[in-house]
Formats: sequence, structure tokens, C-alpha cells
Amino acid sequence: MKLFYAPGTCALASHIALEEAGADYTAVRLDFSKNEQTKPDYLAINPKGRVPALATDRGTLSENVAILAYIAQRYPEAKLAPLNDPFAFAEIQAFNSYLASTVHVAHAHGRRGYRWASDQSSFDDMKRKLPESMGACFDLIERDMLKGPWVMGEAYTICDPYLFTAAEWIEGDGLDPKRFPSVVDHRTRMHDRPAVKRALAAQGRG
Amino acid sequence: MKLFYAPGTCALASHIALEEAGADYTAVRLDFSKNEQTKPDYLAINPKGRVPALATDRGTLSENVAILAYIAQRYPEAKLAPLNDPFAFAEIQAFNSYLASTVHVAHAHGRRGYRWASDQSSFDDMKRKLPESMGACFDLIERDMLKGPWVMGEAYTICDPYLFTAAEWIEGDGLDPKRFPSVVDHRTRMHDRPAVKRALAAQGRG
Repeated sequence: MKLFYAPGTCALASHIALEEAGADYTAVRLDFSKNEQTKPDYLAINPKGRVPALATDRGTLSENVAILAYIAQRYPEAKLAPLNDPFAFAEIQAFNSYLASTVHVAHAHGRRGYRWASDQSSFDDMKRKLPESMGACFDLIERDMLKGPWVMGEAYTICDPYLFTAAEWIEGDGLDPKRFPSVVDHRTRMHDRPAVKRALAAQGRG
Repeated sequence: MKLFYAPGTCALASHIALEEAGADYTAVRLDFSKNEQTKPDYLAINPKGRVPALATDRGTLSENVAILAYIAQRYPEAKLAPLNDPFAFAEIQAFNSYLASTVHVAHAHGRRGYRWASDQSSFDDMKRKLPESMGACFDLIERDMLKGPWVMGEAYTICDPYLFTAAEWIEGDGLDPKRFPSVVDHRTRMHDRPAVKRALAAQGRG
């Protein structure tokens, strides 16, 4: 398998999960500064022009929510999700879907406002709103969603690398990390995991 | 189980899937014009203050991506997803995650720009961009994602009610439906399904 990623993107979540699973894969870096993600070579792999994408012998998967579930199901021995409990599995998918469709979306308004608007004044407005919108997301995670010590409680799952990835954005989005002590404690413990160290090192952030 | 929904929202996807599965459930309508979704009674059920939410005897699930997967796994006899094929299951989660985190998000900029900005000029700008951003989404779905006759090919899955729900927004978001013939054909065939008729009727759109 090949994981297509760019440093600093949400592809880190899938990258860490592949390391946690002990998967046999190669990580392929795209240079967003050269717009490699929108070149024909890459669009033939992932027509969305985004990362992450996981190329497999069956075809290419995109979207962290899907790739993370795939890794958990394909490597059951890594025990990255409760695979035989539909409710518990759905809780995991709900958490990850919230990160994808609410948290990551709020974050993207800081630098990618052109996806949804055209005027510089709108981009500036979006950027000013970022601490409020991201703050509301992390308040909810801190108060209601992160069970501790891991996202789903005692068991480490595919929610953890994804939360870690989003939590790395806190300071850059203008939030005081002290406001989210459980999230930051989780982030610190994630940094100690060998799989996280390997994924960060592979992305040049070691 | 209880499905919490509001008419005209993406909760329709989960509503249809419950009908397709023959699930034993009650649909509970929230009145968004009275902000019932942000009242303490509802926040105790779903602290996100959004729909859909599915209350079960194990707790409440939110996010269509998760609820749809839960329905497919809990009612395997309805055959709403390839449950024993991790790659095919991940393809379904990728499609639904794209609807949640890209298509629905683009759509939401038409009327809920206050989530990401504060100024009326930004909301107006977002609204003007809607045909372009939603058009790009449905171009991709039409060209690369909808296999036909159903989203995943011959088998009807949990992708179909969700695509149907988003496709119902096409005209309201300023797009010419003729541009997306496969999507509109899919929408027409969805309208013919008894489960879709029942869900729409229950929501007062029969």
C-alpha cells in the first residue's frame, strides 16, 4: 500500500494508524507548495486532489474516517477498534466524523477560506472567527467526548491519532492550550508513543 | 430507538435507512424555528445541538456517517453494506464521509455562514460562491463517484439515502439539475422506493 500525504495535514492521522497497525506500506510525500496534489498524476490516483489517500491493490481510499476504519478492520490483531460491537464501532465513527466534518472544517477556514468564499474581507472575517469556532469544538471534546485516558476510554483506538492530529492545531488557531487540559494531556501521551514518533519522523517532524 | 430530526435537514438520510432496515424506532421532530435543538432537554441527549441523533439503549449516536454504518451493522439482514469486506465497507464510509465533510459543508455556507464568519458581507460572499462549490462537488460525484445504478453499483447501500438527501439540495443551491443526469436519475429512482416515501411522509413531505 501507498499512503499519500503532505506534512502538516490531517493525513498524519492515517499515517500514525498505519504505524500502530504494523502495516506494510510506503509513505509518499506530496509537495503542496508545488500543487502536486492537483497534478494529473495524482488526480488519477485521487480525483479529489486531497490527502490522505491510501492506494491498495483493490483501489484507492480517501477520507480519514474511511481509511482509519479500513486499517482497524484489515489489521484486527492491532485491536484499533471494537470490531464486533456495532454500537461501540459507531461511537468511534461518530467521533472521527465530528473531527472530519466539524473540527477540521472549522480549522480550514483559517487558511483555505477560498473554498467557500472569494473576497479577502471574508477570509479575514473567517480568520478572526477561528478561535471561537475551534474553541467551541475543543470545549465539546474536552467536556463531553474525550473519555480518557484515550478517546474511547481504556482502549487506544483509531480515534486517538485523529484527535492528536487536530489537537496539534490548537495554538496555531489562536487557542490557549490550558483551556483544554485533557486534550493536551492526551496529546502529550500521544507524543510518547513509538508509532507517533515514527510517523512524525517520516514526515520530517521527528 | 428514537431518531431526532428536523425537516429539510440531513437527518433524512438516517431516517430513510431506518425505514430500509425495517427498524423498530420512533421519529421525534425538533422545531428548529423554536431552536429546540439548543434547549437543555435536547442537549442532554445530544450535546452537539444538531440532528440527526439516534437514541439507543446503549446511548446516543450522532453524525450520519456513524448512524448509517450502525444501521447497516445492526440489521445485517437488510444488506445495506458489505459487512465482511473491509475494503468495500471503507469505500462506503469514504463516500459518506465526503458527503458529510465536503458536500454538506459547502451547502451549509448558503444559510449557516455564521458558523465560520461574523459579517453580513461574508455571508453574502459565501452565498454567491455556493453554485461553484456545490457544482464542483456534484461534478465529482457525477463523473467519478456514483457507479450506477446505485452509488456502489448493483447493490443498494447506506450511501444511497445520503446521496439522495444531498441531491435534493441541488436546485435550492442554484445548480441546474441537467448538469448532473446520473445524480438526478438516482434521485428519481430513490423517490420511487417505499422506504423513501415513508420517511418523507413521516417528515410531512409526502
